[in-house]
Amino acid sequence: MSKKFVYLFSEGNASMRELLGGKGANLAEMTNLGLPVPQGFTVTTEACTQYYEDGGKINADIEKQILENLAKLEEITGKKFGDKENPLLVSVRSGARASMPGMMDTILNLGLNEDVVETMAQKSNNPRWAWDCYRRFIQMYSDVVMEVGKSYFEELIDQMKEEKGVSQDVDLTADDLKELAYKFKDEYKKVMTQRKEEAEKQGESFEESVEFPDDPLAQMMGAVKAVFRSWDNPRANIYRRDNDIPYSWGTAVNVQMMAFGNMGDDCGTGVAFTRNPATGENKLMGEFLINAQGEDVVAGIRTPMHIDEMKNKFPEAYDEFIQVCENLEKHYRDMQDMEFTVENKKLYMLQTRNGKRTAKAALKIACDLVDEGMRTEKEAVLMIDPRNLDTLLHPQFDDKALKETKPLGKGLGASPGASSGKVVFTAADAEAWANKGEKVILVRLETSPDDIRGMQVAQGILTVRGGMTSHAAVVARGMGTCCVSGCGDIKMDEKNKKFELGGVTFHEGDEISIDGTTGNIYQGTLPTSPATIVGEFERIMDYADKYRRLKVRTNADTPKDAKQAKKLGAQGIGLCRTEHMFFEADRIEPFREMILSETVEEREKALAKILPIQQKDFEEIYESLEGLPVTIRLLDPPLHEFLPKKEDEIENLAKKTNKTVKQVKDKIASMHEFNPMMGHRGCRLTVTYPEICKMQTAAIIKAAIKVNEDHPDWNIVPEIMVPLVGEIKEFKFVKDIITKTAEKVFEETGKKLEYLVGTMIEIPRAALLADEIAQEADFFSFGTNDLTQMTFGFSRDDAGAFLESYYKNKIYENDPFAKLDQHGVGKLVKMASKLGRETNENLHLGICGEHGGDPSTVEFCHNIGLDYVSCSPFRVPIARLAAAQAAINAEAK
Amino acid sequence: MSKKFVYLFSEGNASMRELLGGKGANLAEMTNLGLPVPQGFTVTTEACTQYYEDGGKINADIEKQILENLAKLEEITGKKFGDKENPLLVSVRSGARASMPGMMDTILNLGLNEDVVETMAQKSNNPRWAWDCYRRFIQMYSDVVMEVGKSYFEELIDQMKEEKGVSQDVDLTADDLKELAYKFKDEYKKVMTQRKEEAEKQGESFEESVEFPDDPLAQMMGAVKAVFRSWDNPRANIYRRDNDIPYSWGTAVNVQMMAFGNMGDDCGTGVAFTRNPATGENKLMGEFLINAQGEDVVAGIRTPMHIDEMKNKFPEAYDEFIQVCENLEKHYRDMQDMEFTVENKKLYMLQTRNGKRTAKAALKIACDLVDEGMRTEKEAVLMIDPRNLDTLLHPQFDDKALKETKPLGKGLGASPGASSGKVVFTAADAEAWANKGEKVILVRLETSPDDIRGMQVAQGILTVRGGMTSHAAVVARGMGTCCVSGCGDIKMDEKNKKFELGGVTFHEGDEISIDGTTGNIYQGTLPTSPATIVGEFERIMDYADKYRRLKVRTNADTPKDAKQAKKLGAQGIGLCRTEHMFFEADRIEPFREMILSETVEEREKALAKILPIQQKDFEEIYESLEGLPVTIRLLDPPLHEFLPKKEDEIENLAKKTNKTVKQVKDKIASMHEFNPMMGHRGCRLTVTYPEICKMQTAAIIKAAIKVNEDHPDWNIVPEIMVPLVGEIKEFKFVKDIITKTAEKVFEETGKKLEYLVGTMIEIPRAALLADEIAQEADFFSFGTNDLTQMTFGFSRDDAGAFLESYYKNKIYENDPFAKLDQHGVGKLVKMASKLGRETNENLHLGICGEHGGDPSTVEFCHNIGLDYVSCSPFRVPIARLAAAQAAINAEAK
Repeated sequence: MSKKFVYLFSEGNASMRELLGGKGANLAEMTNLGLPVPQGFTVTTEACTQYYEDGGKINADIEKQILENLAKLEEITGKKFGDKENPLLVSVRSGARASMPGMMDTILNLGLNEDVVETMAQKSNNPRWAWDCYRRFIQMYSDVVMEVGKSYFEELIDQMKEEKGVSQDVDLTADDLKELAYKFKDEYKKVMTQRKEEAEKQGESFEESVEFPDDPLAQMMGAVKAVFRSWDNPRANIYRRDNDIPYSWGTAVNVQMMAFGNMGDDCGTGVAFTRNPATGENKLMGEFLINAQGEDVVAGIRTPMHIDEMKNKFPEAYDEFIQVCENLEKHYRDMQDMEFTVENKKLYMLQTRNGKRTAKAALKIACDLVDEGMRTEKEAVLMIDPRNLDTLLHPQFDDKALKETKPLGKGLGASPGASSGKVVFTAADAEAWANKGEKVILVRLETSPDDIRGMQVAQGILTVRGGMTSHAAVVARGMGTCCVSGCGDIKMDEKNKKFELGGVTFHEGDEISIDGTTGNIYQGTLPTSPATIVGEFERIMDYADKYRRLKVRTNADTPKDAKQAKKLGAQGIGLCRTEHMFFEADRIEPFREMILSETVEEREKALAKILPIQQKDFEEIYESLEGLPVTIRLLDPPLHEFLPKKEDEIENLAKKTNKTVKQVKDKIASMHEFNPMMGHRGCRLTVTYPEICKMQTAAIIKAAIKVNEDHPDWNIVPEIMVPLVGEIKEFKFVKDIITKTAEKVFEETGKKLEYLVGTMIEIPRAALLADEIAQEADFFSFGTNDLTQMTFGFSRDDAGAFLESYYKNKIYENDPFAKLDQHGVGKLVKMASKLGRETNENLHLGICGEHGGDPSTVEFCHNIGLDYVSCSPFRVPIARLAAAQAAINAEAK
Repeated sequence: MSKKFVYLFSEGNASMRELLGGKGANLAEMTNLGLPVPQGFTVTTEACTQYYEDGGKINADIEKQILENLAKLEEITGKKFGDKENPLLVSVRSGARASMPGMMDTILNLGLNEDVVETMAQKSNNPRWAWDCYRRFIQMYSDVVMEVGKSYFEELIDQMKEEKGVSQDVDLTADDLKELAYKFKDEYKKVMTQRKEEAEKQGESFEESVEFPDDPLAQMMGAVKAVFRSWDNPRANIYRRDNDIPYSWGTAVNVQMMAFGNMGDDCGTGVAFTRNPATGENKLMGEFLINAQGEDVVAGIRTPMHIDEMKNKFPEAYDEFIQVCENLEKHYRDMQDMEFTVENKKLYMLQTRNGKRTAKAALKIACDLVDEGMRTEKEAVLMIDPRNLDTLLHPQFDDKALKETKPLGKGLGASPGASSGKVVFTAADAEAWANKGEKVILVRLETSPDDIRGMQVAQGILTVRGGMTSHAAVVARGMGTCCVSGCGDIKMDEKNKKFELGGVTFHEGDEISIDGTTGNIYQGTLPTSPATIVGEFERIMDYADKYRRLKVRTNADTPKDAKQAKKLGAQGIGLCRTEHMFFEADRIEPFREMILSETVEEREKALAKILPIQQKDFEEIYESLEGLPVTIRLLDPPLHEFLPKKEDEIENLAKKTNKTVKQVKDKIASMHEFNPMMGHRGCRLTVTYPEICKMQTAAIIKAAIKVNEDHPDWNIVPEIMVPLVGEIKEFKFVKDIITKTAEKVFEETGKKLEYLVGTMIEIPRAALLADEIAQEADFFSFGTNDLTQMTFGFSRDDAGAFLESYYKNKIYENDPFAKLDQHGVGKLVKMASKLGRETNENLHLGICGEHGGDPSTVEFCHNIGLDYVSCSPFRVPIARLAAAQAAINAEAK
């Protein structure tokens, strides 16, 4: 027996969302609830998958099932598809598991041709309606199925209205509409003929007819195919990638008998939400148009009336609709987003779904539903999309201002927030302008660790190159600074301190605004509204904390970030990078001196200058967290990153260190690396220069002793993290240095304290041999940034050159640096966790890569039994919520 | 009960080598055989390990057992240690499992002090002997245990001989020797006092006495400790790394009663081999000195007599020795290397071991032993160290010339062979000189793919930077060209085309000689002797082929290499890299044109020019292998490697492609990568530019069709290898392009053939998900170079900066790029093999990294069930032998 590819609405229900898509499942559910739904059938998502497996063809089996169900629909409705006397007209609409803008939406009035429309016009005694249906059908079919005429058809309508001296579509007559229909068909034929000639010139085959299809069955199969095809269009692919929707899901197709809102003034069509999707307020909200079909409401050609006004026009249909709204909300226990039509005063429901909402509305609705007894706390937690919280945590551009301003260009929304400021082109300029009290936006081709100070003082960062995990993006997210990265349209002229975008040339000091959520870039300064953490936000976070097992820490390098993260609920620092500290003016000099040293003694002398400064840093960080745990990572980047690049800086350094400029340049040249990512960095620095590790350990331990003395109730237990370990002997070597240094500090100070020594697992070899390393390590923190790079074998700085092609070809569907590759890298993480716990059951496990704030990764971390995730401060609430959802979902399984 | 750390010779036997070391086990075995061995005891290798675990201390238990066994030895010998009347003197010697130059060797006459020596002088009536023993003891103990006086003592002896007007040590009188002994002791005290003062100045503790130890027990413990310590000295560490000896093994210590060869003219000492260690000839070979102790023979102070002359001097001892030789060889079934002493005409055996031998001798001896019925064929195969074969496969510098010439410096012996030629500094110069018929040595800071042509025409390659797996080393080994890499002592001035080494300045055209085995560098041209493959070599290779399961292929990119490898027994090509082909003058231009193309069409046009050339390449390679299988890897390196760097070349390219110089430079700049190793390369090139893959596939298939037509009996089945795969969809994408292209070629030509599509496993993710990839792949070839880089997370080009520190600190004992890291990388390889075969039982498995020619890696590959290894041509015989040994060893288990 062949697979069932087509279901009548009466055969499905809401739980069949995977097979029938969201729209199909809900139409079936509404049918079962006895609501007034025009009947129809759904072609399954499996048929879509089959279509792609068959190389973009609808196979005979599927076609047969469609025809069989069409026959059943004819029986149910008593109408006949393509019949002149009593024609069945249908809508064809896509419907994936998750609602997906970017895909083909709707074709209405399918089943019409010149014969049918003529008869329909006569029999209904409503030729205007008949021809309105036909011109709409041609318009939609041409656009959606063949990509013909979209804007040109609109032009023709506008011309016609001008000719006739009317302003509204509804004022066009039957004859006008008929004329339009013929014009549309002519245009269709013209474009298709051109395409055919071109194809033939290229020697390619062209199977389509150049005529607009008159055969309703051909229309039907063309439309179904178009829906399937739209699953793979570029907009859909981008949306999927942004929203973690797998390509393999496919879309369903819904074929539904038409209900007509355009038969006259006792007809109409509308959309409504059971609650306000912007604020969450529990009050019906919607719009309604008389004598119109569905797309007119969305298209905004005519101004629709408020849903409440429907009460006066169609009191019976309105009352029924209110009742339906109530029933649906109770049934689905969530705010509903519905489409409906009134045909000759009778209500028809065309669609319902859980409505999309802003983060603010989502929080309010979830809390209200708990208060109304419709949802439990756990369910409320599950109702919030953690990713949406982001928008609540950063200032946003004013909605009104956005509506009035056209962006000049668009990059990647790399770090959320909205910033305006004066353009500067170098980190030094950023500091200089900031010192004068100016707000600046740092615009760079790309940023490097050298730019840190400038990035810190900037309101926002804009780069020409780099993706979502470029240096600029990662650092900006860590700082909570707004960042738009990778705006390739910028024509940069760094030398002359200017750039061009969207026809505008910006010089240093010109005002610019960037939106780190959308990636949009605007000229001038736009007004913003501040971030508000409303009461429901806090309440949902409390629920989340109540139900999650996974702890949430933060990646923070400064007291400012640490304080911010603590406010957002961080339970400690999972990753405190020490390298940024060395770029500060008071320490970069002795640090460079250290790098240029020829002997251990020289190096120790330079390090001795840094020790008290670094100790102070750590004291401040401990203070800012008020006793919460702090994991400090030893120095990680290759030392050459700290050396100057500019001539004057090099001269300066030479002078300070009593060396010739040539000596300094030779040293810099000798430190060049072919692949710095895989070079002399991480714990390799400790193996070659144990002095650095000694200094850092002393600073960490001394700071903790000091702060513990000042706050006897805190009992700080420093966690020292060794980066880039690949072998137990290597870890043991570094650990021995740490232990000896700590003992020495204890001896010198006469104080003792507990401390932990653990490692980042970021090298594949460490993951493979985690059972060995765990014998010596107190904790593992998965550094999934580097682990991803090495497991995939590509560097995130360079992958931009080819990852787009990978997305296009469906080889990878997500950026593995944004969302953990659970299948591959995750296999290593899981393996390492298991191996590690086998030899050390007390091993504390966490993750501190950029992935720590990604909800799907948080769920993965929960499921494989990690103890905590660590993410940038502004992602802490997201991780808290995701952790709770993971726990609740796991429990339910 | 405590562990037994000390064994009397009578308690051990030859099988206890791991515990007693080679020397100790053989002394025990000789004792059991009833040979005349001065008795003694062995402190075990476990005691050595314990010594290091205890932080460099001999613990009470071990000391107690030493004393107990000393008491037993006193009982056996009837002498007393430290006794004046009848003193027991002993030798203390190191003895690891494998014989190891670089460690402490011997202290003789231990147990003497001023009292004992006086009494001994009187009682023996041989004061010269007594004082000779004492001065020798002081000399050796000072040097070996405390590193005092080595050369200074020799000076004192020479001064004394001059004073006394004698030329030989033996001509010094008892009084002379006594005077020397006192002078030695004075020097000892002086140096030790200085050390003590220095230590105190540094605030360090100094536990040693400044006096030369008079207490025999203190001498004993000091000597044992010195042996243990010598296990960890730098020379020993380097030797271990070069010879795959684990640090964890430790060394044993042998304490043996002295037999005196220096009591007068009826005494003497000698060393002998039962067969000639240089040629293998079955004839006793050895040297003998009258009135001497062991070290005199080695030291070369006096010229020893040939062993045959001993027959006249000590006929009885000689006859007994001949009998002992015969017995030992029969017993050990191998050539023996022995030390012995004659004391008052009586023979004492001090040591026997399987003698070290040249590769040539090893082959002859193994074959002779088979012929003599002493060894089976399999045992003969196991007797040859595969690594030594290397020396037989390349021309060598003449032995005589080497003795007469001092090297100017030393780098790494990166690719064996001996070459002389004129110094050139650029690849272009190399070609220019070579075109004039000159032999050249290419001297570079480091080489790059740009230098390929120059490297091809050079006799040898010498680089300042880079290790055993640097570009120069890998390419040179692949070509079989002699190479010395990483000679950091060279002061290079590439700009002015000169360098300095060992005080000599070389300009272009100056003659130089390099030895790719030892790494030595000589001024001028040294004569060489050609490589000879003698009959026994062939015979052993035949045995090896008979018993091995693993196939051996070669990594070869040119017909020349392929032919060479086939001669050496390669059973096909496991890795044919196609990138080197693109650097040839006739194709680099269209290839660069291709890279600069803006559209697919432009790219295809440029590629069309390369197709026939590349097809010809492949035809020639197929031809050269006469039907053996060939695996061709698709283009692997990032495209920017092919772009010019020099101004004139860039201008030239701009002209050829109708672009401005700026456009070309912009393109080059835009292709810059931060980490090219992890960049846009391998199959990622196919995903972005499928045209390249199409061209290469067409060339591969067309070439095979052509050659199959010319040779109907060959039936070539091309194996197309996709590099750098990390995901099944990625592999599938490339495979689809290959399949479609092949089908197209079949259609065009009307011919068909079988072909395979497989992948390199060189990305950790591919290994982790090998079960998936194997569903689509016909074969896996482990690219262990890149797999090692990514699993360890360090690049082989950059690792030089820190790996030395890792060796020094015993974190890694071997270069993981030379010897496969079986523990970590091997775990991945094993996992991938297992996973791959689970979903594809016919999966063909091989390895094509540099490791393919390393014997321990070959054994690993055999044991985990791979089908073949592939290595550079000159390593093929080594791999064949290693594969046979692996099979024979596995069978025996």
